[in-house]
Amino acid sequence: MNQDFLREAIRLSVEGMEAGEGGPFGAIVVRNGKIVGRGWNRVTSTNDPTAHAEIVAIRDACGNLNTFSLAGCEIYTSCEPCPMCFAAIYWARLERIYYAATGADAQAAGFDDCRFSHELALPPASRSISMVRGLEEEAREAFQAWMRKADRIAY
Amino acid sequence: MNQDFLREAIRLSVEGMEAGEGGPFGAIVVRNGKIVGRGWNRVTSTNDPTAHAEIVAIRDACGNLNTFSLAGCEIYTSCEPCPMCFAAIYWARLERIYYAATGADAQAAGFDDCRFSHELALPPASRSISMVRGLEEEAREAFQAWMRKADRIAY
Repeated sequence: MNQDFLREAIRLSVEGMEAGEGGPFGAIVVRNGKIVGRGWNRVTSTNDPTAHAEIVAIRDACGNLNTFSLAGCEIYTSCEPCPMCFAAIYWARLERIYYAATGADAQAAGFDDCRFSHELALPPASRSISMVRGLEEEAREAFQAWMRKADRIAY
Repeated sequence: MNQDFLREAIRLSVEGMEAGEGGPFGAIVVRNGKIVGRGWNRVTSTNDPTAHAEIVAIRDACGNLNTFSLAGCEIYTSCEPCPMCFAAIYWARLERIYYAATGADAQAAGFDDCRFSHELALPPASRSISMVRGLEEEAREAFQAWMRKADRIAY
């Protein structure tokens, strides 16, 4: 671990919070020892509940590198990723997570990270958001069209 | 369930795919029987691995309604949400999910939804992305500053 990178993620968490951008969370994406993306929580200032530090940093890095895959990169984040950000890190193909505070620390400061982790671990029928299914066959046709699409770009 | 809304989500999934925007996924956000946000997968066309249909629809709805909370709204999506989108739906405070295809359908079409769900269900030490922790105390100071911040906006 490069502690300077983790310290930079923590610095962004404080800077963003003090600027009124959102909660106290910061993250950076690193490739070959160089910072290629930065993010801090911007949920309340941009009216975007998905604008967590890790998501913002991933989007910034992808924009800077002009790619949708961050394979070969690592993420440093001031706090253990919530389930949304954790799955985003998988989708971005990041290879390692360095973090400082835990989801329990975030929960103690009033954030729902642990509650949502717990929800996601439940069978869908036991979760607090109800899920209703329909039109299965019509939706499957879209996947069949995708599989037939000669110029599809996998991700 | 309003089948017309679910059909609109499926229609967006096909339209976006055919336009070369990304994978075959569409979603809409509905409030009081009216569509307030639309999204389709834009991962490959915008170089954003987080641009799944549900995330795009949530961001669109929040922009249109000028809020970071979609409490009182529902989401219709062409496919069962992946873990990233499911957690985003929690963070957005959406109240119900209507969906058509399943994560297994998506997996059969080459998408990693189920693999990532499985990963998230594992204890962190057993996951394929390694997690390394450090600087706990420095990060906790940011949360303490948040708790002291008189004008903080919770989300």
